[in-house]
Amino acid sequence: MYTINQLQEIILQEINKLNFKGNPLTLYEPIQYTIGTGGKRIRPILVLAASNVFSDDIDASISVALAFEVFHNFTLLHDDIMDNSPIRRNKKTVHVKWNNNTAILSGDAMMIKAYDFLKSLPADLLKEIFPVFNNTALEVCEGQQYDMDFEKQENVSELEYLNMIKLKTSVLIAASLKAGAICGGASKKDANFLYDFGINIGLAFQLQDDLLDVYADSQKFGKQSGNDIITGKKTFLLINAFEKADYKTYLKLKTLLSDKSINNKEKIKQATAIFNKLGIKHLTELNIRKYHKKAINSLNSLSVKDEKKEILLSFANSIMNRKH
Amino acid sequence: MYTINQLQEIILQEINKLNFKGNPLTLYEPIQYTIGTGGKRIRPILVLAASNVFSDDIDASISVALAFEVFHNFTLLHDDIMDNSPIRRNKKTVHVKWNNNTAILSGDAMMIKAYDFLKSLPADLLKEIFPVFNNTALEVCEGQQYDMDFEKQENVSELEYLNMIKLKTSVLIAASLKAGAICGGASKKDANFLYDFGINIGLAFQLQDDLLDVYADSQKFGKQSGNDIITGKKTFLLINAFEKADYKTYLKLKTLLSDKSINNKEKIKQATAIFNKLGIKHLTELNIRKYHKKAINSLNSLSVKDEKKEILLSFANSIMNRKH
Repeated sequence: MYTINQLQEIILQEINKLNFKGNPLTLYEPIQYTIGTGGKRIRPILVLAASNVFSDDIDASISVALAFEVFHNFTLLHDDIMDNSPIRRNKKTVHVKWNNNTAILSGDAMMIKAYDFLKSLPADLLKEIFPVFNNTALEVCEGQQYDMDFEKQENVSELEYLNMIKLKTSVLIAASLKAGAICGGASKKDANFLYDFGINIGLAFQLQDDLLDVYADSQKFGKQSGNDIITGKKTFLLINAFEKADYKTYLKLKTLLSDKSINNKEKIKQATAIFNKLGIKHLTELNIRKYHKKAINSLNSLSVKDEKKEILLSFANSIMNRKH
Repeated sequence: MYTINQLQEIILQEINKLNFKGNPLTLYEPIQYTIGTGGKRIRPILVLAASNVFSDDIDASISVALAFEVFHNFTLLHDDIMDNSPIRRNKKTVHVKWNNNTAILSGDAMMIKAYDFLKSLPADLLKEIFPVFNNTALEVCEGQQYDMDFEKQENVSELEYLNMIKLKTSVLIAASLKAGAICGGASKKDANFLYDFGINIGLAFQLQDDLLDVYADSQKFGKQSGNDIITGKKTFLLINAFEKADYKTYLKLKTLLSDKSINNKEKIKQATAIFNKLGIKHLTELNIRKYHKKAINSLNSLSVKDEKKEILLSFANSIMNRKH
């Protein structure tokens, strides 16, 4: 078995070796730039880790890992155009550094490049992994569309929100794990247990993200918190606050969020006070624990020795314990 | 063997059956709209026709035909954003009817839907066709990027132009034929002969397009000609006119194209007169014939009876004889 550090080292080396340079430069340079901007490389590491649960030989899973990482980065490239984001990972986004047309077309080519990593797979593995990859790719688009739709939608229910973050975040993590498991020769049952593990860990991760935006200690961790409150983003916290509030509190929160005369610091303070009064922090923590527990149950259901699950178990626990 | 009308009927029925409806509607409606706007459905018909050259059973090729047609329509959807085109096939383009973000994301989903048609293929066919499809998809992006780059580029050589139209137009026609041939069980050699046939027919088609824009009889065929002259598009005709002109004529043509004080009709008349003086019509016709002949040679090289080639032969000849 590889250690998590070894898997990370393998994938970083593979990503460093990637060379998307080609002609026309205007098409390929933004792809090389995007894949080179860093990120935690969580998805490709999960592909390798899942493969390693079932097999000592993880070679076949490397190209699959790269397919998922390149696809993930393609989605960021196109999302940044749609969300009009100027900065990603401390660097200019492609549509700002170049222009919208370049970002659209380079993104298209980057998605095709993601698929390209699958072509080296043996026919039987390709046949199994291709639909997993493809269905997931489509779901990620659905998630991004819901996310954009929700900005204009007056009310978003908790269920709608959970479905959106499942599509936008969880399914790609889940599919990375499932595809890795298939590469490692896992049974269908075990591959699906890992998929479920990924779905629930993804949900826990996103709810933790929502929570930390309001409750992270910004002085300690250097991350500006409260940004979701300032932008009025319909997060798990805000949706539940609207749900739980009496009519007076509901109106107060609604007015507060759209009030442009209040400075940001004060707005965050007042919204947080309402969240506190409604027990939103506790409720969110309960839900994170719920999804974490579901994930662990899926991991426990795998038909392999406990020692094989250690990396994925620590991964799940690290999400629970992250503070920023 | 099927007749061309029968193949057309089969593909139109299959396209009519397509149902991209799903949630969120904002993602899927533009896909259904785009595939429903019509077009000549040349690529999917060529997939079936190529398959039918080698096999009486063309069932396996139908999903491949749909993959190519949906991919082609995806490229139009994204190209229309980049080219800022308001109308396609007499209907509003997606980015005008909806908005840019919807057009970007629905386009992404549409590309994934194109790949989706390949997943029903048996493992060995998938393994063979997937890289053909993928390489071609990437080349089409390269062609579009060159096309956009050329607008800003002072001089474009004939060679650069031919490479661009090969990537933007020919490779997808060629790959449709090759993939169809593979479905029909063609040998590698025969599949590649059909690929070459497609490349050359694609080039002949595009040069014919350039020619007809200037020399089609607009009264008879109702197609406005001279549009490329008005927009100053670097077509095969214009590139060769610049190449062949003496310095005085070169300057005259250059000045004419950027002169905003001359009305369109007069501009077309004067540019056409220069083309005539330089023998550009004849030169273009010679080149069309050259690529047509190359295509026919590839068709003649196929290891099948002549009667099997009839549909593709008429297709090639129809390109030579089209008048609008």
